[in-house]
Amino acid sequence: MAGSILGTIFTITTWGESHGKAIGVVVDGCPAGLTLAPSDIQPFLNRRKPGTSKYTTPRKEGDEVEILSGTFAGVTTGTPISMVVYNTDERSHDYGKIKDTYRPGHADYTYQEKYGIRDYRGGGRSSGRETIGRVAAGAIAWKLLNEFGITPLTYATSIGPIRISSERFDEAEINNNPLFMPDAKAAEEARAYLDECLAHSDSAGGVIECVVSGLPVGLGQPVFGKLDSELAKAVMSIGSVKGVEFGAGFQAASLNGHENNDPFTKTGKATNHAGGILGGISDGDSLVLRAAIKPTPSIAMPQKTVTLGGEETSITIQGRHDPVIVPRAVVVVEAMVGLTLIDALLMNCSSKLENLKKIYDCEE
Amino acid sequence: MAGSILGTIFTITTWGESHGKAIGVVVDGCPAGLTLAPSDIQPFLNRRKPGTSKYTTPRKEGDEVEILSGTFAGVTTGTPISMVVYNTDERSHDYGKIKDTYRPGHADYTYQEKYGIRDYRGGGRSSGRETIGRVAAGAIAWKLLNEFGITPLTYATSIGPIRISSERFDEAEINNNPLFMPDAKAAEEARAYLDECLAHSDSAGGVIECVVSGLPVGLGQPVFGKLDSELAKAVMSIGSVKGVEFGAGFQAASLNGHENNDPFTKTGKATNHAGGILGGISDGDSLVLRAAIKPTPSIAMPQKTVTLGGEETSITIQGRHDPVIVPRAVVVVEAMVGLTLIDALLMNCSSKLENLKKIYDCEE
Amino acid sequence: MAGSILGTIFTITTWGESHGKAIGVVVDGCPAGLTLAPSDIQPFLNRRKPGTSKYTTPRKEGDEVEILSGTFAGVTTGTPISMVVYNTDERSHDYGKIKDTYRPGHADYTYQEKYGIRDYRGGGRSSGRETIGRVAAGAIAWKLLNEFGITPLTYATSIGPIRISSERFDEAEINNNPLFMPDAKAAEEARAYLDECLAHSDSAGGVIECVVSGLPVGLGQPVFGKLDSELAKAVMSIGSVKGVEFGAGFQAASLNGHENNDPFTKTGKATNHAGGILGGISDGDSLVLRAAIKPTPSIAMPQKTVTLGGEETSITIQGRHDPVIVPRAVVVVEAMVGLTLIDALLMNCSSKLENLKKIYDCEE
Amino acid sequence: MAGSILGTIFTITTWGESHGKAIGVVVDGCPAGLTLAPSDIQPFLNRRKPGTSKYTTPRKEGDEVEILSGTFAGVTTGTPISMVVYNTDERSHDYGKIKDTYRPGHADYTYQEKYGIRDYRGGGRSSGRETIGRVAAGAIAWKLLNEFGITPLTYATSIGPIRISSERFDEAEINNNPLFMPDAKAAEEARAYLDECLAHSDSAGGVIECVVSGLPVGLGQPVFGKLDSELAKAVMSIGSVKGVEFGAGFQAASLNGHENNDPFTKTGKATNHAGGILGGISDGDSLVLRAAIKPTPSIAMPQKTVTLGGEETSITIQGRHDPVIVPRAVVVVEAMVGLTLIDALLMNCSSKLENLKKIYDCEE
Repeated sequence: MAGSILGTIFTITTWGESHGKAIGVVVDGCPAGLTLAPSDIQPFLNRRKPGTSKYTTPRKEGDEVEILSGTFAGVTTGTPISMVVYNTDERSHDYGKIKDTYRPGHADYTYQEKYGIRDYRGGGRSSGRETIGRVAAGAIAWKLLNEFGITPLTYATSIGPIRISSERFDEAEINNNPLFMPDAKAAEEARAYLDECLAHSDSAGGVIECVVSGLPVGLGQPVFGKLDSELAKAVMSIGSVKGVEFGAGFQAASLNGHENNDPFTKTGKATNHAGGILGGISDGDSLVLRAAIKPTPSIAMPQKTVTLGGEETSITIQGRHDPVIVPRAVVVVEAMVGLTLIDALLMNCSSKLENLKKIYDCEE
Repeated sequence: MAGSILGTIFTITTWGESHGKAIGVVVDGCPAGLTLAPSDIQPFLNRRKPGTSKYTTPRKEGDEVEILSGTFAGVTTGTPISMVVYNTDERSHDYGKIKDTYRPGHADYTYQEKYGIRDYRGGGRSSGRETIGRVAAGAIAWKLLNEFGITPLTYATSIGPIRISSERFDEAEINNNPLFMPDAKAAEEARAYLDECLAHSDSAGGVIECVVSGLPVGLGQPVFGKLDSELAKAVMSIGSVKGVEFGAGFQAASLNGHENNDPFTKTGKATNHAGGILGGISDGDSLVLRAAIKPTPSIAMPQKTVTLGGEETSITIQGRHDPVIVPRAVVVVEAMVGLTLIDALLMNCSSKLENLKKIYDCEE
Repeated sequence: MAGSILGTIFTITTWGESHGKAIGVVVDGCPAGLTLAPSDIQPFLNRRKPGTSKYTTPRKEGDEVEILSGTFAGVTTGTPISMVVYNTDERSHDYGKIKDTYRPGHADYTYQEKYGIRDYRGGGRSSGRETIGRVAAGAIAWKLLNEFGITPLTYATSIGPIRISSERFDEAEINNNPLFMPDAKAAEEARAYLDECLAHSDSAGGVIECVVSGLPVGLGQPVFGKLDSELAKAVMSIGSVKGVEFGAGFQAASLNGHENNDPFTKTGKATNHAGGILGGISDGDSLVLRAAIKPTPSIAMPQKTVTLGGEETSITIQGRHDPVIVPRAVVVVEAMVGLTLIDALLMNCSSKLENLKKIYDCEE
Repeated sequence: MAGSILGTIFTITTWGESHGKAIGVVVDGCPAGLTLAPSDIQPFLNRRKPGTSKYTTPRKEGDEVEILSGTFAGVTTGTPISMVVYNTDERSHDYGKIKDTYRPGHADYTYQEKYGIRDYRGGGRSSGRETIGRVAAGAIAWKLLNEFGITPLTYATSIGPIRISSERFDEAEINNNPLFMPDAKAAEEARAYLDECLAHSDSAGGVIECVVSGLPVGLGQPVFGKLDSELAKAVMSIGSVKGVEFGAGFQAASLNGHENNDPFTKTGKATNHAGGILGGISDGDSLVLRAAIKPTPSIAMPQKTVTLGGEETSITIQGRHDPVIVPRAVVVVEAMVGLTLIDALLMNCSSKLENLKKIYDCEE
């Protein structure tokens, strides 16, 4: 399938470049009967909007979403939902310099080689702005998932070398700091660390964790459509993600079997090293996923690189950039998880004949 | 798409259960004109065959592959290649006990809940034997990739707490030890560690690394079909994988931008924290992927669990099991990487008009 | 998607060549909980088996199906169902002559050009034997559809110039004659016509009609996955089909709106020119589909053609061939209709939120 | 795959309702390097625009297309091309009456039942306006196909009972009459016939033929992705199409083998009953496809029907409607053929190893 389409039943097709006219998404396969308005979408977009703190790019974008199709009288009709956000503060003159020089850590070189042409303005399609479509679609996914009592909690567990402490974990703290860390002390330290990065024209990475509660048992289609398999694909498709893990994750590799196995009890699993997935199928426990985010590649210090012609040179990235991608990526990870879960939930309807008979009223 | 199908152009459909009659795969979309014989497939299957050391299950299986279609006079014809391996040493009586009790760390519970029925013999479809089809197909993928000068190197970087040392890294050592570690000393320590695990009826996990050389620039279809996105999906679909990372991976999250960015030089990137992928597209450098493998869930010590009826009980897994999955999973990871790469290579033919004109001879 | 895979949720992957070792299919996505045995499949295969009358090739094939996976204790488990039929009477020496000469009306030339190689024995993959996998899978599709009260009736409405009369239409007659015509008199005439064709070493075509009763309203996914759209694809993929139509079909093109429109009444539509589909969605009325089957291209009279080298020559097809494909294609059309319907029925589960809540018990 | 997505490599996702804000399409998978401007798209849209003669609805729509993404400096970049046409003359008050009553021959009933809700304004998603997205995307498909010397000719062969004569066939005439008939006399008769229909508040159907020249041998992916199979799906997905046939089509069913087979000669096939496709693969000859279009279901005479509540009633469709759909559907058929061909052309790149080596320069 072409690269900008994701999903099987609940699908999204995203489009748009950083400095083009607009960014958008078409959601096809959304069940009919869901009340839906721009006010359901906007809060998700606002969580990734630039300019909300000094740790995000000062580019000013309203990022206001418009729904162009797929609803009638405020309710989804089962037809494709087209959503668009117009770009208003492109300022493409800021980016003129990168026309002829490849930025380290960016996709300039690979796009140029793959396609023979690239929209160099702001990274074009490889810009973080591409995620607007994902987030808008993710808002619909989560609205649907909420109908089944499924809810997410997403936050940063580390920024650079600063990690949250499990003892201090405080859900209420997440929206209290611009870094979305569930630990006030860690957030404070992380801010200090980022200030230092900014002072050195440098950037930082971090880790995002998404925990989903309320999942029914059964989501995931073995063997290649396993829930973790699809989630890994979806989350790894976010620009700066370099690793994805579930439950104990990479830690599990150094545990023994008796430590890592989660005993079953009458009330569920006693532990959750599995991260809520067994054999690629949700087990009714909380889904636990973590994504490693690399440091922002755009830094305002000189870096060695080459020109399109292959000459060695140096580049200093000017313009407006996030010193750390993590805070704005939190809602993107959440969106990708939601999109994957709703598709898995829809696919799972066909797992057993018994389900189908409920829908087609065969008992009667 | 249904769960046992993977890929878009070069696709595989796997089938079969641990204790069914056979295990197999259909490869559809393999280009015509590749010489192919069972002798191209068998060496890959032999690398995952049980019974080769005391660190793998003593189940005796010849695992001999038969090609039933898709070749003519020893050459692929572009039609589906069906391959089958018959099960010969099922001994299903060994597994009677797990009929009514869920094994911790296994998929018994989730399959039962999702489908309302499960083949409990040897884990049925969730058994590691399912990977035979993947490995057979992966052998074809790699034969094709070799035609383009693309080659893999796959090995264990850790077993339990034992890690290889980068100073002692020795490619030649990989096939010298039953754990496929590129470091003789680490392999020795890992064997001692596994002997200890066996003595305690326990098991271990580990990390597998796959490095691919010779990749052209351009593989990967942004934004959801990014090369790392598809690789993550493919590798995460292997039963025991709990995490996947590329290049610096989770490590990148604590680096600064100036450390993590790879400077471009006339002869390629100066470093490879990116793991050979920029913006989801191969950058011509080596692909570096790591997968975290959990410890074998089947252990011969008593574990708390519940019955199908929900009663709490204890289970001690008898039968023949690998104390560590890593050595046999090495070739499975390699297979999944190969399958993903060949599909990406085929998809990339359509990236630019210039490519198409070469095929359809439009210049003339 | 690769060419030998069909469907989205209920998928089939067929494989095999006319004179290869075997022919088979993998059904992936079949819901769990359906009782299934080879005895459910075999009657469908027997309907397309050669050698049952003088109007079908005398090639002797038992065409006995074996189920290799996907069931446990006689019930589907939700995992892929692999089915195989071994070729027993290949006699490939019969076909040596066609190695270097293209048969008119066959796919020899196009396969050779597309793939650069072809299995010329009996047409290889383009042989009618390829449909064995479709029919085996179609049997499962119909077993499922029967659970919802959906049943097919498929028959020939014409052989060459001989057409059935609607006044004489007699369902009971269909299985009384080797041509599966629901009109004894037409069948008699058609047999006489075919005897004449045989006497002249010639062949005939015909039209097959499939009527499906018991369909619920709602199957079909506008706009490209419309029910008629998917059915047309599935039926047109049968080797000899040159046209597909629904309800009034091509006839509708010359009717007026007031004639062609079907008035709605309290008890359904007053007429059924629509053929059971409105806007690409099943309307609860009978589905009516017709397929035009071309005359068998293999005829034992001399025909002008060229060699692989491009030299003009003449060919007289020897070997065992059906003078008319229609009778054996009846069950193939029925199979393709069934496969399309079950996939549409599964897709339709996600059409509205209300359906999903029934499955996930959200009301409670 | 969700219903509003078509294609595998060159894909389109259409969206929008008749009386919504806009209609649009996202083309994903278009190769980079094609010069593309709105002026390439607009002529196709103008061919389906309403209000061009008394035989099309007087609804006034500029139908001006805007390209929102996917091009840079007037050239495609390989990223998704989003195109939008805003609705300007909705006049939804015209349609109030159909809110509670099902129109015969329309999709009102099936949408209502499938989704539990429908946008009744102008037919919502089931309106012919939905085809705007298809036609815009089809324009790109044809621009690409032209690069390979592939060109279409599409016209009406019949309107109601009036058929063109093959002796009078005149390509130059097609754009000389508002019915796009390649026969001036037939066009004249058809206009008289339509005037009569209009006088009786009735409507007419017809047949559209599309002939494609310049196709290379090899397009089509046996067995389910055959070229005729995919074309049938694409064309049957157009709202009013009730039948599709290739070459001799339904006529072939009454021919003998020796009549229907096309002899091969040094310079190609001597005849073209096959319609340019053998074994589901293009044979280098002209592609010949015909589609049967039903009469416009909206007629201004009273028709029997039922209300949403199931009460029998009568309806007379007011508003602006085409007395015959054929003229405006000509370009829609052409668009669907183009979209299918370009996807098949891209898929065919992977048919043989030899093709791939050309792209990846392996000879050197």
